[in-house]
Amino acid sequence: MNFRAPPWRHQHLLDVAGLAADELARVLELADDMAASLRTRTRRDELAGQRLVTLFSEPSTRTRLSFEVAARALGAEVSHLEPPTSSLVKGESLVDTVRTLAALGADVLVIRHRRGGAPALAARHFPGHVINAGDGTHAHPTQALSDLYTLRRRLARGLSGARVTILGDILHSRVARSNAWSLTTAGAQVTLCGPAEWLPDIATWLPNLAERVAGGASPPAVRVTTDIDTALSEADAVMTLRIQNERLSRTGGTRARASRLGPSPAEYVRRYRLTSQRLALARPDAIVLHPGPVNEGVEITREVSSGPRSVILDQVANGVPVRMAMLALLSAAGAATGSGARD
Amino acid sequence: MNFRAPPWRHQHLLDVAGLAADELARVLELADDMAASLRTRTRRDELAGQRLVTLFSEPSTRTRLSFEVAARALGAEVSHLEPPTSSLVKGESLVDTVRTLAALGADVLVIRHRRGGAPALAARHFPGHVINAGDGTHAHPTQALSDLYTLRRRLARGLSGARVTILGDILHSRVARSNAWSLTTAGAQVTLCGPAEWLPDIATWLPNLAERVAGGASPPAVRVTTDIDTALSEADAVMTLRIQNERLSRTGGTRARASRLGPSPAEYVRRYRLTSQRLALARPDAIVLHPGPVNEGVEITREVSSGPRSVILDQVANGVPVRMAMLALLSAAGAATGSGARD
Amino acid sequence: MNFRAPPWRHQHLLDVAGLAADELARVLELADDMAASLRTRTRRDELAGQRLVTLFSEPSTRTRLSFEVAARALGAEVSHLEPPTSSLVKGESLVDTVRTLAALGADVLVIRHRRGGAPALAARHFPGHVINAGDGTHAHPTQALSDLYTLRRRLARGLSGARVTILGDILHSRVARSNAWSLTTAGAQVTLCGPAEWLPDIATWLPNLAERVAGGASPPAVRVTTDIDTALSEADAVMTLRIQNERLSRTGGTRARASRLGPSPAEYVRRYRLTSQRLALARPDAIVLHPGPVNEGVEITREVSSGPRSVILDQVANGVPVRMAMLALLSAAGAATGSGARD
Repeated sequence: MNFRAPPWRHQHLLDVAGLAADELARVLELADDMAASLRTRTRRDELAGQRLVTLFSEPSTRTRLSFEVAARALGAEVSHLEPPTSSLVKGESLVDTVRTLAALGADVLVIRHRRGGAPALAARHFPGHVINAGDGTHAHPTQALSDLYTLRRRLARGLSGARVTILGDILHSRVARSNAWSLTTAGAQVTLCGPAEWLPDIATWLPNLAERVAGGASPPAVRVTTDIDTALSEADAVMTLRIQNERLSRTGGTRARASRLGPSPAEYVRRYRLTSQRLALARPDAIVLHPGPVNEGVEITREVSSGPRSVILDQVANGVPVRMAMLALLSAAGAATGSGARD
Repeated sequence: MNFRAPPWRHQHLLDVAGLAADELARVLELADDMAASLRTRTRRDELAGQRLVTLFSEPSTRTRLSFEVAARALGAEVSHLEPPTSSLVKGESLVDTVRTLAALGADVLVIRHRRGGAPALAARHFPGHVINAGDGTHAHPTQALSDLYTLRRRLARGLSGARVTILGDILHSRVARSNAWSLTTAGAQVTLCGPAEWLPDIATWLPNLAERVAGGASPPAVRVTTDIDTALSEADAVMTLRIQNERLSRTGGTRARASRLGPSPAEYVRRYRLTSQRLALARPDAIVLHPGPVNEGVEITREVSSGPRSVILDQVANGVPVRMAMLALLSAAGAATGSGARD
Repeated sequence: MNFRAPPWRHQHLLDVAGLAADELARVLELADDMAASLRTRTRRDELAGQRLVTLFSEPSTRTRLSFEVAARALGAEVSHLEPPTSSLVKGESLVDTVRTLAALGADVLVIRHRRGGAPALAARHFPGHVINAGDGTHAHPTQALSDLYTLRRRLARGLSGARVTILGDILHSRVARSNAWSLTTAGAQVTLCGPAEWLPDIATWLPNLAERVAGGASPPAVRVTTDIDTALSEADAVMTLRIQNERLSRTGGTRARASRLGPSPAEYVRRYRLTSQRLALARPDAIVLHPGPVNEGVEITREVSSGPRSVILDQVANGVPVRMAMLALLSAAGAATGSGARD
């Protein structure tokens, strides 16, 4: 850490919603340092002697492993509590598990949970640092920070004013919500596109958007559309979301809407799958993102996901230095303020 | 290790029953050193270059993680064999698994097993050190040692003569049995309380109690009662056990006794749940223990388990330095005597 | 690594079929060095700063743990992707998983897979090193190398000209196939013995055998027989294979052959179980191998598997230095040629 840098203000990382534009910039800048250390295989010691525990109630290879690699690269020890081996199987509450982990010496807790708000609940009972690794439909802050880092590196025009289109089941996607928040904070213009059943009400989904985005953006910082051609037009980046099968309707139109399901698989593919033809509507140098794992042939064709515009593997690779940056910032916060530090 | 200390006499830790009073004291004293190292995050090297493997046929977050943290804090490497990934799934016997782990270079084996005696069987075929992490209804020595450490630190009057009441399904509890043994060895007076179906015959459950406890205690070192008011009266510490649902009767009194089940859930709660009202019968400064995870509202109310008298999280935290002490003692035993050391 | 040694020619270890006799010898020689380091608990650093990931779609305690111990003994960090926690559960393809692991910083990938050829497929998409830890009925190169090392150490006459008999379901055994290949390359004479349904056609199972084995061996390098007495006669070593229950017929002779199943369990035991009586047909100092885990009483009696001629635990122990040798050679290959190294 640069000794002139002010201490990080946050004990936990529960949402990108709490991060100001200068804080986002600081994460990305530190991630550049971390990426340099990874390239030269230089071991760092920001988390030496600390213990990170992952507590995932949903499996996720890439996210869990990304945290593991990042934490070890900073000198931390890592332990995993997978659902089948966790005390959760005995019916212990999340709060009791969290208190137990603190008593066992955990310094950082990385939580993925089916329920939105679970990491925030855990944070109220954990003296160290809690990182939200995805909670229900609420937030996935480290994914959004990784995507922001990837976009900053790959967009020639930078983040400010960049047009980023997010495609899919926006309403139920923690990735979409966190990205919409951080992108608008960083000055990008976001277009959310998908079937009407899956589009959110912006006023409640991204509260205080107008106040938050400096000066009241013109054109507006976020727009919503069901028309993919409109959404892709002039886009600098297209982010496709993974479609959850259980959100798709097997019975079609009217009944699906009635039950809050989306279109049938065939209808979704016909109207929203990102193909090379559709991608041609975006800017010539537009890049394609996906949080992974990809349902090939559903939300995106293999030609696009494995094509030259795809930065999907960059997103995975960038997740490591970005998570290193967040871990180092949180850890320094604890040390600087005393909060979260235990003796 | 103090260079004047005699070598530890035991290659394995299979039961607290084999430990004399001075050996218990030595574990607790070394645990104080270990706790100091943890507080200052000082890495120790008593197990440097050694490999500890956990082999758990029953899941247990806290016990497995406690050993993992303790072993790493002493410089050991840790590997886990969880049931679903162990060769046990192919029908290999415990003895063959143990021999295989020895051949693969394991120095310390931590075993939790459904069957009482499984760790002892393993020890006969393992050249290193075996630690019993709970076997059937037989023993759970590291839990008892952690509880002894917690009691010694929290009881103003010390362990000698302290009145400790254990509440619940005594007969089927390895925690109760190991605690009864170590507490009486350390000079405490133990009261075992629960439904008649769950109370043991002391002569067989704690053999040689009279000979073992110096001078033949008066009042007796262990008493047994079905009356919770009697049991709690004047207690310095109350240890509630986790009630296993499968031990409770769904059909009530007579038939339950006939089938060796306990009372119905409602009856157990009515007669034995530790509440604030009942705790008032104990000494004013009495502390409350529970091996975890807690069935809140069954054997204990949340008011008590999360109240100011509860030392439940202390028990979890103390498990780490106590396990460090045991690992260091066993490891030194191997080095001093040659038994258990392989080249 | 000796500085005079030529670089290792192979980026991956997918099969022993690609290794020449001098390469086999080099692995065994380096394994001797590794075994010496293990005996003296000397930490080596050939893989310092590198990350090995195991990706096992079939559970295997001994193989996974053997790689873990070997990699850590060379300074590598190890992560595991077990099937239940891998992204495979979300339907991601092996190729996508492999690319993701590369992006996350994996340097070495150890793959066990139901399908033959899966590691080779993975290798085409992985910039680091892929090691096949057993794929379908195809190959299990590190097992064969460990067995070769064990035989070289335990056979007084050495490998050249040694008579090694392999017993069981030869046709479906990756262990048998890899051993037959490496043994013949090293100059041993191999006898394959089992029920007719389980014997392979050598011309397709071991292609180019005649050209490969120097000078056209006389007697032939590999012979095949259904008669166990013939197979055991004058053998220097007997390798029994684990019988897969699903390969045994429940209905007996004719129908079994029609459905490509083998004999009934009783018939297999009667005709092919390795007993002390049968072992007496081999040379007086003949040793007995088994890749483990053993089905005691099926393919081998406990008297033999635990008897003085058994080197089964040696095989397990030798797996560690042999895997260390392979890891060090592959890693040096990457460093020397630039292939497999990422910056």
